[in-house]
Amino acid sequence: MPAFMPVGTQATVKGLTISQLRAAGAEMVLGNTYHLALRPGERVIERLGGLHQFMGWPGPILTDSGGFQLYSLAKCAEVSDEGAIFQSHIDGQVVQLSPERAIEIQESLGSDVAMVLDHVAGLPSDPEFIRDACRRTVDWARRSLAVARRVDQALFAIVQGGLCGELRQQCAQQLTELPFSGYAIGGLSVGETPAQMYRTLDVTCPVLPPHRPRYLMGVGRPQDLLESIHRGVDLFDCVMPTRNGRNALAFTDEGPLRLRNLKYKEDQRPLESQCPCPACRHSRGYLRHLFVSGEMLGPILLSAHNLTYYQRLISGARQAIVEDAYTLYMAAKMKGWGE
Amino acid sequence: MPAFMPVGTQATVKGLTISQLRAAGAEMVLGNTYHLALRPGERVIERLGGLHQFMGWPGPILTDSGGFQLYSLAKCAEVSDEGAIFQSHIDGQVVQLSPERAIEIQESLGSDVAMVLDHVAGLPSDPEFIRDACRRTVDWARRSLAVARRVDQALFAIVQGGLCGELRQQCAQQLTELPFSGYAIGGLSVGETPAQMYRTLDVTCPVLPPHRPRYLMGVGRPQDLLESIHRGVDLFDCVMPTRNGRNALAFTDEGPLRLRNLKYKEDQRPLESQCPCPACRHSRGYLRHLFVSGEMLGPILLSAHNLTYYQRLISGARQAIVEDAYTLYMAAKMKGWGE
Repeated sequence: MPAFMPVGTQATVKGLTISQLRAAGAEMVLGNTYHLALRPGERVIERLGGLHQFMGWPGPILTDSGGFQLYSLAKCAEVSDEGAIFQSHIDGQVVQLSPERAIEIQESLGSDVAMVLDHVAGLPSDPEFIRDACRRTVDWARRSLAVARRVDQALFAIVQGGLCGELRQQCAQQLTELPFSGYAIGGLSVGETPAQMYRTLDVTCPVLPPHRPRYLMGVGRPQDLLESIHRGVDLFDCVMPTRNGRNALAFTDEGPLRLRNLKYKEDQRPLESQCPCPACRHSRGYLRHLFVSGEMLGPILLSAHNLTYYQRLISGARQAIVEDAYTLYMAAKMKGWGE
Repeated sequence: MPAFMPVGTQATVKGLTISQLRAAGAEMVLGNTYHLALRPGERVIERLGGLHQFMGWPGPILTDSGGFQLYSLAKCAEVSDEGAIFQSHIDGQVVQLSPERAIEIQESLGSDVAMVLDHVAGLPSDPEFIRDACRRTVDWARRSLAVARRVDQALFAIVQGGLCGELRQQCAQQLTELPFSGYAIGGLSVGETPAQMYRTLDVTCPVLPPHRPRYLMGVGRPQDLLESIHRGVDLFDCVMPTRNGRNALAFTDEGPLRLRNLKYKEDQRPLESQCPCPACRHSRGYLRHLFVSGEMLGPILLSAHNLTYYQRLISGARQAIVEDAYTLYMAAKMKGWGE
């Protein structure tokens, strides 16, 4: 059954208190190994009771491994079979991250689901480079399994392979031979077209075990979620609801709404009349005023609305699946989000 | 009975939703004529249902007149007996503000309490300049009364007079001869010492009518509130709880707590163990992490905590007054806030 995880990279979903996050309908949130190990350090979090206690979130938490940040954020990352050496994006300090170290950090954090360290190849990349990154990713997955000790922490592997169907299937095949609790599809949402992403799902999902959760990392737009659920994906995380919210873009069933637009200046309507979020207690005119005036409450309210929108979209999908009516549901929702 | 109004200058108390504001214990909030007339314009707010509807605050609202902003914020303000001409701090546009215009704006906003436009003299100022500003303030108060039409809107006058006891008393005397619903003490918290402020209250409060609310504008620190309540002040507003909260300073009964300090890094305790606010569901270590990481949730949580602190301080004062135990209450609370 599909679920969407709001992103709490630094042990906070940006702009929302725990009770606002709950009210938005979130069930599970994501934290980040890379960020939290650098600041405040996983030992600090451990001494403050672990990540759940630290951020005050009693529900399940998945921690990403840092593999994506090696690709997107770290300076001068050097990846070898041993692991990665990089400069912290915070202070330039040289840090090492290996599959074993990523598990060690996540066991200190105490998340419910840990991710193996993977090697993300940017797109486009040389086929040989992607093949090498796949081989390394599978090897690292094996090493992660070998050192993971917490019985209360599930471990998910990550399928790489760029846009090459053959590599994706081969990587998935090799990983599914190992006893992971779930399988993620990584290395997407890095600049490829939606069609390329869907095609990658089309070839990868059938190779994944039917009774293990499938997690599409870092995706995406409402239409991406709908298309991916259709292809058998269960779990998502994405910064879009909060990041776009902070930039005055609201998600609605009629599509995106850019609140800085002058046409909303005296608009008395809420973003969505049926939405229970705190933003929808106000008019679009008021929300626009908050952004134009540079008030914190604008980003806060739109983050709450967008997360609520995503959770309602996903909860509707779950309901539709139960009722065997997902195709209809998807068609109805796509009207606002069709390309 | 004393009350504290959180400051919602631009129709939002910075960083808090309406339900968080209620949960902090706020009963009445302050909005600002100057800011709201410039952006989004009082007509826009009127068309969106008035200030209560616009910001979603169902409780009472007091709007300041803009007099203080002419002193603190407007560029090149020229004040004459007629009114003031200034450049907007937003776009440099030339704007005029008169006592009549300030009433007109506030009647459009539909606040429960409107303030007359006053002429704030900075400190130190020439005695003749202060005397002139007083005369003008009384004249403007008279003109405001003459044009105010909304029977559902109370009008408060503002006593000026700098640090000169004689001028303060004279200004208060002249204003109390006019039928205002309440009396404010303005022109303080502009750089004078606490002792000078208290002395000004000592000479002014006795001249004010006992059965009309007395509002000390823009004040202040917890100890200032305690000292001022002792001298007969009923109503306060101040940006300190929210502004200091955004800057990682927390108010507690033990005094201020600067959360960026390294000593809180692994501090498991909440800011205050008895505080019901959302910040106090977390450890000081977590709150420090939020500020060090530049996360929005730090300013949000500390704003909520500080407003809750102020409301609890004031609510305790009310309780103590009812029990005829204010002196004891003040002495106990001053322990953390004594100079």
